Amino acid sequence: MKMKIADYLIKRLHEVHVDHIFGVPGDYNLGFLDYVEDSKEVDWIGCCNELNAGYAADGYARIRGMGAVATTYGVGELSAINATAGSFAESVPVIHIAGVPSSMVKDNRLFVHHSTGRGEFDTFDRIFREVTGFQTTLNEYDAADEIDRLIESVYKFKLPGYLEFPVDIVSKEIDVDMKPLDLCVRSNPDTLKQLVDAIAEEVKNSKAQHIIADYKVLRAAATKEMEEFVNYAKIPVSTLSMGKTAVSEENPYFAGVFTGAISSEQVKKVANSSDLVLLFGVKFTDTTTAGFQFINNDKKWIQIGLTQTRIGEKVYTGVYITDVIKALTASNIKFTNSVKLEHKKEKFVPKDAPLTQDRYYELIGAFLKKGDVVVAETGTSYFGCSTVPFPQGATFVGQPLWGSIGYACPAVLGTNMADKNRRNILLIGDGSFQLTAQEVSTMIRQKLKTILFVINNDGYTIERIIHGKHREYNHTQMWNYAELPKVFATKGDVQPTTFKVSTEKELAKVMETIDKGCDGLVLVEVTMGMLDAPQVLRDEGILFSKQNNY
Amino acid sequence: MKMKIADYLIKRLHEVHVDHIFGVPGDYNLGFLDYVEDSKEVDWIGCCNELNAGYAADGYARIRGMGAVATTYGVGELSAINATAGSFAESVPVIHIAGVPSSMVKDNRLFVHHSTGRGEFDTFDRIFREVTGFQTTLNEYDAADEIDRLIESVYKFKLPGYLEFPVDIVSKEIDVDMKPLDLCVRSNPDTLKQLVDAIAEEVKNSKAQHIIADYKVLRAAATKEMEEFVNYAKIPVSTLSMGKTAVSEENPYFAGVFTGAISSEQVKKVANSSDLVLLFGVKFTDTTTAGFQFINNDKKWIQIGLTQTRIGEKVYTGVYITDVIKALTASNIKFTNSVKLEHKKEKFVPKDAPLTQDRYYELIGAFLKKGDVVVAETGTSYFGCSTVPFPQGATFVGQPLWGSIGYACPAVLGTNMADKNRRNILLIGDGSFQLTAQEVSTMIRQKLKTILFVINNDGYTIERIIHGKHREYNHTQMWNYAELPKVFATKGDVQPTTFKVSTEKELAKVMETIDKGCDGLVLVEVTMGMLDAPQVLRDEGILFSKQNNY
Repeated sequence: MKMKIADYLIKRLHEVHVDHIFGVPGDYNLGFLDYVEDSKEVDWIGCCNELNAGYAADGYARIRGMGAVATTYGVGELSAINATAGSFAESVPVIHIAGVPSSMVKDNRLFVHHSTGRGEFDTFDRIFREVTGFQTTLNEYDAADEIDRLIESVYKFKLPGYLEFPVDIVSKEIDVDMKPLDLCVRSNPDTLKQLVDAIAEEVKNSKAQHIIADYKVLRAAATKEMEEFVNYAKIPVSTLSMGKTAVSEENPYFAGVFTGAISSEQVKKVANSSDLVLLFGVKFTDTTTAGFQFINNDKKWIQIGLTQTRIGEKVYTGVYITDVIKALTASNIKFTNSVKLEHKKEKFVPKDAPLTQDRYYELIGAFLKKGDVVVAETGTSYFGCSTVPFPQGATFVGQPLWGSIGYACPAVLGTNMADKNRRNILLIGDGSFQLTAQEVSTMIRQKLKTILFVINNDGYTIERIIHGKHREYNHTQMWNYAELPKVFATKGDVQPTTFKVSTEKELAKVMETIDKGCDGLVLVEVTMGMLDAPQVLRDEGILFSKQNNY
Repeated sequence: MKMKIADYLIKRLHEVHVDHIFGVPGDYNLGFLDYVEDSKEVDWIGCCNELNAGYAADGYARIRGMGAVATTYGVGELSAINATAGSFAESVPVIHIAGVPSSMVKDNRLFVHHSTGRGEFDTFDRIFREVTGFQTTLNEYDAADEIDRLIESVYKFKLPGYLEFPVDIVSKEIDVDMKPLDLCVRSNPDTLKQLVDAIAEEVKNSKAQHIIADYKVLRAAATKEMEEFVNYAKIPVSTLSMGKTAVSEENPYFAGVFTGAISSEQVKKVANSSDLVLLFGVKFTDTTTAGFQFINNDKKWIQIGLTQTRIGEKVYTGVYITDVIKALTASNIKFTNSVKLEHKKEKFVPKDAPLTQDRYYELIGAFLKKGDVVVAETGTSYFGCSTVPFPQGATFVGQPLWGSIGYACPAVLGTNMADKNRRNILLIGDGSFQLTAQEVSTMIRQKLKTILFVINNDGYTIERIIHGKHREYNHTQMWNYAELPKVFATKGDVQPTTFKVSTEKELAKVMETIDKGCDGLVLVEVTMGMLDAPQVLRDEGILFSKQNNY
């Protein structure tokens, strides 16, 4: 059948659950945006700037399994590249659609706007090859094939893709069949069997085992399979903070979040209790392991990655993580570990006292409900929240490896657009909020009921912890944060609700009000001490400081 | 003498008039920021985000002749790369200082935060090679040499430079001599003489000549020399809008801004009046020539570039633009052109009528004073302002080639920090303002008296002119713009003054109030019709639309 290339791309994106494309219009993508706006399958979510749009697409992909951002040539795509690089570092499947000049402009090497003015048009393609897994520049001869290849690869391998869409072929009609995309990653059955046998052997030769699950379990959408395996194996499981909520934190075998040397006593006891560790989708990074301290190097590891598993020197390729998990659950392997786990949850009783960081995150923990999505900014919010027990079905979103401050605010726009039926909560500090705060206006525009907690403590606390405690450069301009949403809402908008609190009792009361229901977006400005930080971050800061020779 | 590497870099930057470094702290640059904060020569200007800091450094460099931005590894530098690429496209000398991990981290290929998590540390270096003229990664063995090479090259060739500063060598002590930097570009005297003779021959063989000056005259800081040459030659001169104010617009030989086929009748008459065009530092781009229409291809051109001059096929290298201009002024060449120029300036009489775009820029023109710096955002502001006659000594700053929306707001922070004695004026529209609006908070923090005119006309007008006049994607969320500065100012700040106007009389009255003097920053929200645009942009839009096959 005949179809315009733009329509084909939209239909294929829709097939992988991309119902919203984030971005900013620019004169090399306006033609494509016509098709987006006219399509029934996909909505355009105009953002305030491209970096924010890229972050939103990343957040969206973490919930939906796939996201897309559309930018214009040069200025637009480079503005967003930090978001794309973050998706690359953290294995988030996002398609970056860049509108690029026509072949006439390229062939004549014209000095057009948004180019570097040297008649050179491959610059940005070369740049994006560094931070994406797959790339294509569409042409009218194999556009359908290339669109399919890109989307299928991004979907399967969980790395961002870069798609250059020249303005002059957007409306070209091509012949397409619409057979479904091939989204299935097939494991080699023989290798899978060999692998399960090898794991059985390792388990047999060990005294006790434990499990660590991380972010690639989330990316593979294998949390259900993971939970089933844990329930079958009946051995303790931790996640890294990057993979927090990959296993329900209400599961009786869940020991807590593993944070290297600064893990809880219970998590350390689990780590010490076994001589074999099953690592599912794990990457040990400095942020999630307290600078690589206490990561069980003395144990035997089985590293189950997205598409390969490693046991010592032996690598099994072509085995997909979800299949490995399922095969283990279906095996007869007997796992053993006799550590007894405790799940104490004390009721939080708010005091009439100024909020401290440690007490704040306890209160946040008490506020959380089943099914919530929590987006926590790298900084006090991420670290403070990482060890708070989450209710079942809640999802934790953070960016600890790439760690780009400002990520979380636009990211929660993305996660909330991805599922409006879940409650979406942003945890952020003032320093980070200032980078991307305007995206709150898009939340209001989209009538979202996002709940934003903004800590006002006068600057970049995470940096202060690492270095420069009393330095002026770690200070930020003080804003009236609670007033900001009102600037972004005019007549006709659902008016946002804002609060300003500084004590435990005040915050607890605001949380009660929120629980009763607010009409639109909610922003809570929470004042805390400048040098206060959650315990995890205080410990982590010392280790980071050493790593950087401070 | 002995000096720490960080101190040496600071001293060298100060030598090229960099007294302020813009940026955002991050844990790979905190060590360097200690030295910046402690130095007497250079101040740290913390910005809300890195892209804004990059734009500010670019604006600063356009006034000071050099600028610097400091970012952290990965996340920080990539956030700012669009600004650096803009400096590259438009020949603005900015040093981008990126804090990078220690050699211990690199050598051990550690999966640290702000990296892509693959133990690979050359990625960002490779990326920045695409959009900078010069690069270095400092080490302790030749840091002084490399710092000198980078700064001298950036200064001489007016292209941005990229400097990777590993955290572990910031405080290393090195042996340095402090002989002054070599900032002088020497022209080859023989070539220069041959060139002047050749130009004399061309002039002799022609009937009449005219001059077009562009942005590289501004970058070479050769406006004084240019003016002297114009006064010597006594022939009509135009500038492109990208080089507006390269020649005083009050000069009797100034004919107006050349905008290709949509130039004024007088500029067209000048272009038609001669058979030889002397082009000083000119690049014909689509934006400044109405899509390459009527750019005098039928004339003989002498193209005087930054370091080379081209006459037909013959290229003279090693001749610096300032030297060429001076040599021509000192020559005996007799230039001729008998076109009579008119400089009519009518007094603007405000009416009690809603503002239109055309009338708005006339009123802006009437408001301008000698010595003002005007930063105009690509869009209605840039095009509307480009043909407004500027008073002597006023400087026009815009970014028509790179054309990144959102540039102008942080850029005016930079231009204003570069010279607090001049009045700095921002002209911007709402669509663009939303990208980078938070940087107004830094202007307040720095106690600047910047004057901001923000057009509120409900979206991306320049895009509407090009394509999608009634499209939803060209719409933005409506903000209460006049309320925004109040969010950014708290107790202890000089309170900003804000106005909201929609008629000529209201705006004229506000301008009178501003003229009387306000204490701090001023923001004027100017309401105008959604589809109104300056005539130049309306004409230009049709041509851009064609270029992109719309």
